[in-house]
Amino acid sequence: MRELLYEGKAKRIYSTADSEAVLVEYKDSATAFNGEKKAEITGKGVLNNEISSLLFKKLRENGIESHFIKKVSSTEQLVKRVSIIPLEVVVRNIAAGSMSKRLGLKEGRQLLKPIVEFYLKDDGLGDPLITEDHILELQVAAIGEIEVLKQKALEVNSFLSSFFEGLGIRLVDFKLEFGKDAAGQILLADEISPDTCRLWDMETNEKLDKDVFRRNLGSITEAYEKILVRLGG
Amino acid sequence: MRELLYEGKAKRIYSTADSEAVLVEYKDSATAFNGEKKAEITGKGVLNNEISSLLFKKLRENGIESHFIKKVSSTEQLVKRVSIIPLEVVVRNIAAGSMSKRLGLKEGRQLLKPIVEFYLKDDGLGDPLITEDHILELQVAAIGEIEVLKQKALEVNSFLSSFFEGLGIRLVDFKLEFGKDAAGQILLADEISPDTCRLWDMETNEKLDKDVFRRNLGSITEAYEKILVRLGG
Repeated sequence: MRELLYEGKAKRIYSTADSEAVLVEYKDSATAFNGEKKAEITGKGVLNNEISSLLFKKLRENGIESHFIKKVSSTEQLVKRVSIIPLEVVVRNIAAGSMSKRLGLKEGRQLLKPIVEFYLKDDGLGDPLITEDHILELQVAAIGEIEVLKQKALEVNSFLSSFFEGLGIRLVDFKLEFGKDAAGQILLADEISPDTCRLWDMETNEKLDKDVFRRNLGSITEAYEKILVRLGG
Repeated sequence: MRELLYEGKAKRIYSTADSEAVLVEYKDSATAFNGEKKAEITGKGVLNNEISSLLFKKLRENGIESHFIKKVSSTEQLVKRVSIIPLEVVVRNIAAGSMSKRLGLKEGRQLLKPIVEFYLKDDGLGDPLITEDHILELQVAAIGEIEVLKQKALEVNSFLSSFFEGLGIRLVDFKLEFGKDAAGQILLADEISPDTCRLWDMETNEKLDKDVFRRNLGSITEAYEKILVRLGG
């Protein structure tokens, strides 16, 4: 009945009895730098499933739909089956990570306005930054779809930035993925968690996200637990 | 009187008695891979000055203005003084070079439509590909200026593609730079030569451009001379 459809670095996807729904299992694996750095972090799957479920619910309450249906166990969510568009849609409010390196901007610099970037989901190519013209050339999305992706990404940013600010957390940047459902509608998918967001404590600038793992800054589960506690989970 | 204002990898810029004009001297230096590969190629400066002068004149005859005033010696041009916008504006008709690598496209693939890319002119950062949002964040150009750059780049492409096709040469891609004159007008600048264009013989696909140097394919001056001969120079 339950068939493994796909295994990624941080999640497994299983079929369910409902052909329009799949089960997402959050793994304990942590990876960074295109898989070069790897570790098993006991408890990470539980934390990310809980955080991601909470955030998808909050988004829905605020009018932003996603593939999320419900949390079904400590490490599993039921989600709508979508065909993932092979783009990482990154929204940035503050310069950090690869953008700081690329543009020579000091990490922590407030950007003039939120910036949406597209990266091609392709491990073999190292998930390169690409332009909208590249997306059209690769026929990964049509021009109207690119606009929808940007608009939805900025809507998510608008809500989540305010929401996290209310919890004393700065939403520095984050990565979204989108999919198309059976009707061809573009739907927010994948996960929203400290694996996919940069989250800094507004008072101390403490990093409460995967940079703790990438940069060996301490216990990743302690950082993620702090996020979960602020979220009231 | 003649003061060295700037020395780049392939050219030197000198002041002239006219404060609104500068002298461009084409050097014999060839560099590639952000300066990692270097050589002195006797005769390259003469060839590029001749080719670039011919192309700027052809563009002017066809309504596309540039900083070019006139060729004044075998290695020198007189050009309008502009302040260079630190962007490499790349137009591509066929996948090659860094675009092939980035997107995993076979070199030689005809693109669906010409693509304009922007690279930040910054040797320290390795001249990275950047998006329009990055340009706005860096305040390197305003949004209206980006549109002008794209439009002018595509106009140059439209003319040069047809022009080279008439000479049996495929214009695969090329890099332009633009500057602002004293009045703030955006003007095509820098050079247009086999150093800055990929030019393939339409019959044989022989490379007649700097890839001969980058990839050790033979004599760079012989390749550039073939271009000059086709241009009637």
